[in-house]
Amino acid sequence: MLPTSINAIEAYSGANGILKKVKKGSLLIDSGTIDPMVSKELAKEVEKMGAVFMDAPVSGGVGAARSGNLTFMVGGVEEEFAAAQELLGCMGSNVVRCGDVGTGQAVKICNNLLLAISMIGTAEAMNLGIRLGLDPKLLAKILNMSSGRCWSSDTYNPVPGVMDGVPSANNYQGGFGTTLMAKDLGLAQDSATSTKSPILLGSQAHQIYRMMCAKGYSKKDFSSVFQFL
Amino acid sequence: MLPTSINAIEAYSGANGILKKVKKGSLLIDSGTIDPMVSKELAKEVEKMGAVFMDAPVSGGVGAARSGNLTFMVGGVEEEFAAAQELLGCMGSNVVRCGDVGTGQAVKICNNLLLAISMIGTAEAMNLGIRLGLDPKLLAKILNMSSGRCWSSDTYNPVPGVMDGVPSANNYQGGFGTTLMAKDLGLAQDSATSTKSPILLGSQAHQIYRMMCAKGYSKKDFSSVFQFL
Amino acid sequence: MLPTSINAIEAYSGANGILKKVKKGSLLIDSGTIDPMVSKELAKEVEKMGAVFMDAPVSGGVGAARSGNLTFMVGGVEEEFAAAQELLGCMGSNVVRCGDVGTGQAVKICNNLLLAISMIGTAEAMNLGIRLGLDPKLLAKILNMSSGRCWSSDTYNPVPGVMDGVPSANNYQGGFGTTLMAKDLGLAQDSATSTKSPILLGSQAHQIYRMMCAKGYSKKDFSSVFQFL
Amino acid sequence: MLPTSINAIEAYSGANGILKKVKKGSLLIDSGTIDPMVSKELAKEVEKMGAVFMDAPVSGGVGAARSGNLTFMVGGVEEEFAAAQELLGCMGSNVVRCGDVGTGQAVKICNNLLLAISMIGTAEAMNLGIRLGLDPKLLAKILNMSSGRCWSSDTYNPVPGVMDGVPSANNYQGGFGTTLMAKDLGLAQDSATSTKSPILLGSQAHQIYRMMCAKGYSKKDFSSVFQFL
Repeated sequence: MLPTSINAIEAYSGANGILKKVKKGSLLIDSGTIDPMVSKELAKEVEKMGAVFMDAPVSGGVGAARSGNLTFMVGGVEEEFAAAQELLGCMGSNVVRCGDVGTGQAVKICNNLLLAISMIGTAEAMNLGIRLGLDPKLLAKILNMSSGRCWSSDTYNPVPGVMDGVPSANNYQGGFGTTLMAKDLGLAQDSATSTKSPILLGSQAHQIYRMMCAKGYSKKDFSSVFQFL
Repeated sequence: MLPTSINAIEAYSGANGILKKVKKGSLLIDSGTIDPMVSKELAKEVEKMGAVFMDAPVSGGVGAARSGNLTFMVGGVEEEFAAAQELLGCMGSNVVRCGDVGTGQAVKICNNLLLAISMIGTAEAMNLGIRLGLDPKLLAKILNMSSGRCWSSDTYNPVPGVMDGVPSANNYQGGFGTTLMAKDLGLAQDSATSTKSPILLGSQAHQIYRMMCAKGYSKKDFSSVFQFL
Repeated sequence: MLPTSINAIEAYSGANGILKKVKKGSLLIDSGTIDPMVSKELAKEVEKMGAVFMDAPVSGGVGAARSGNLTFMVGGVEEEFAAAQELLGCMGSNVVRCGDVGTGQAVKICNNLLLAISMIGTAEAMNLGIRLGLDPKLLAKILNMSSGRCWSSDTYNPVPGVMDGVPSANNYQGGFGTTLMAKDLGLAQDSATSTKSPILLGSQAHQIYRMMCAKGYSKKDFSSVFQFL
Repeated sequence: MLPTSINAIEAYSGANGILKKVKKGSLLIDSGTIDPMVSKELAKEVEKMGAVFMDAPVSGGVGAARSGNLTFMVGGVEEEFAAAQELLGCMGSNVVRCGDVGTGQAVKICNNLLLAISMIGTAEAMNLGIRLGLDPKLLAKILNMSSGRCWSSDTYNPVPGVMDGVPSANNYQGGFGTTLMAKDLGLAQDSATSTKSPILLGSQAHQIYRMMCAKGYSKKDFSSVFQFL
């Protein structure tokens, strides 16, 4: 589970890389969040060596990792999925096959794109409501039983004092860092550019998290966008 | 329940307006979605006549209205809320007091701001995923058990073929029109400008719905942003 | 030349307002930047008193005011324009009639909308170029002989060290404050909402200047967006 | 002068590529607009063969190419610049050295980023002004003597009827196609992501041109954004 596409390429194709020594029939599972194009490239190289490659990025964060409740989004051939599932099931309670190699990454990227957008949206709506004189707890309660409801509003609310046990209750420490979100949005941007998909709010979300990194929020949880606004 | 702030002002303050003839002690409830500043102004005028004004915008759409399951977000003095609740309970299953006059509007505006943002976000994420080769039903299923989950993805998915009984399953007919969403986002924009609240994604969502209105989507449901992208 | 629409309304329609005492035949010229709808309203009231109202917002800043080189954008009836021109010519080297009442404001708003967008664009392009290893002076020089050229790049460059005698050469002091730009963009936003004109970049520029005001840039020149980025 | 980074890589490194047969001491000049990182990679490979590589993207369009008045933005070692200048001077009236390999691309990308932003800004401001009742010719005239002035407003105005001899006077035929602008903004986006530079308006401009390509504007001049709005 390496941080960037470049690290993954090096680990596989570098001078002492995995591709140099991998045994026939091995199952190689990469759980980093990287460019799906790179996953596909690596899978081809691995196949040449007679082994099998799968991408299986995770979601759930540190908490879910500790309790073995991660979600794995797996891309790879169907025949080998049972084997992967057995291994990954030790760490995760959800192991979902998304399709062929690269689709695990694609699902992860789409999820985090939507997550970033709805988190910023939640921060904007809560902030506007507070400035209009609303009580934040009451506002969150009504949003959560209405059409504005989303994971960022009902499970991970970014406004201090609204929920317990979330980063906003702990000065935005822990959780999923702003830098990591900016990185994932960079991958979404790259995928959108290469597939010519318009992501109007997504590219704005990307830029907002980039700015936050430059303004001292890089190590805070990504819900600190409420504080930034 | 009139469409704009101007209509409401005329109904109350116009030549043959309500303010000319209202009896002392009357309870006046306005369920249109209008500028909260206007609600406050009207409440002051009504108070001068010895009557009581409340704002009580609704959510839920045509379906909920038919079945008496609307949500009413009520702004007004606490002492009169029980009376309002009795009346509104005939049409709605949720009648929530949000605070003093204007707060019903404020909550409605914040909800629809977040709704518009998460709907466009859902459309962008689903569209990107499809172009990356994912099956839309599978993608929606995984998003809905992950942190990208929102009402627009799990209850009102904008991609044809993913869900039944929603406007996207019926060529985006019925539902909540793009023009109405553009109008509500105009109110959010005005409130944000007057309270100096930054709404980076919200103002972009506003502009996107404005453009859609000009491009032939005005009568379609607001989830048609998927088709537009 | 009052700062907001509300101030202008009070100066005219307030308890001791101009409308109470204005003599027939007077020529009233308002040089504040306000909502063109308000200018039109005031003109109607003034006309009822037998006087004439014109809107004549200025551009050029403190320097041009000192040297009598302001530009006045005038909206008002053609017959009275010569009289206005004579007066305004004492302070301005350009006195342009833009059409009937309100058009002076409309031109001012459109100019500042485009100005804000091209200033932020210049800041983004210069910043990106510098991070790509370009010399800022050389980059500015080439932009200014190419299709990226604009007033913000060739006359008021936001990058310290590129030009002399501009706010960026003086720690962004003096010039046209970020708060004032945010205010003018608020007027542009209101005009765009009421005429249903899409301003995708304009509304984003508005939000960026709003954020800057909240982040300690309110008193700096609006070219400090380079520093903010 | 090939359309994409991938084409350039193939022309140099492909099975029958230039790198296979290039003679020592050759001067290789690439005038396509591609990723500056790719230019640098190619330069390294070329150097290994004992030859010299320069990037020299152009601006000016078909008209300037015909009349030999192109602008060349050159990146490459200083010692060889005189030789390049002699060749490129046959086609261009401006041949500017921007620094080492890759800087020609960097300048081109920054220019087109700013160009796209100011073109969309001009379209938004002109459109808003027209809807506010202004005469487009008069509005353009005043903008062009004010701080909103830019190449898109004074040399290439996007509103039909304002200027002669530009694409907007000819149903947006000829000129610089929307697809090409979307491509260059994709390069700007990639450069911004890899250097972690925030480009808030730039990424929005990118998405707008992407949407235009999907909506039937791909072959029209990029000033057709006025028509799109």
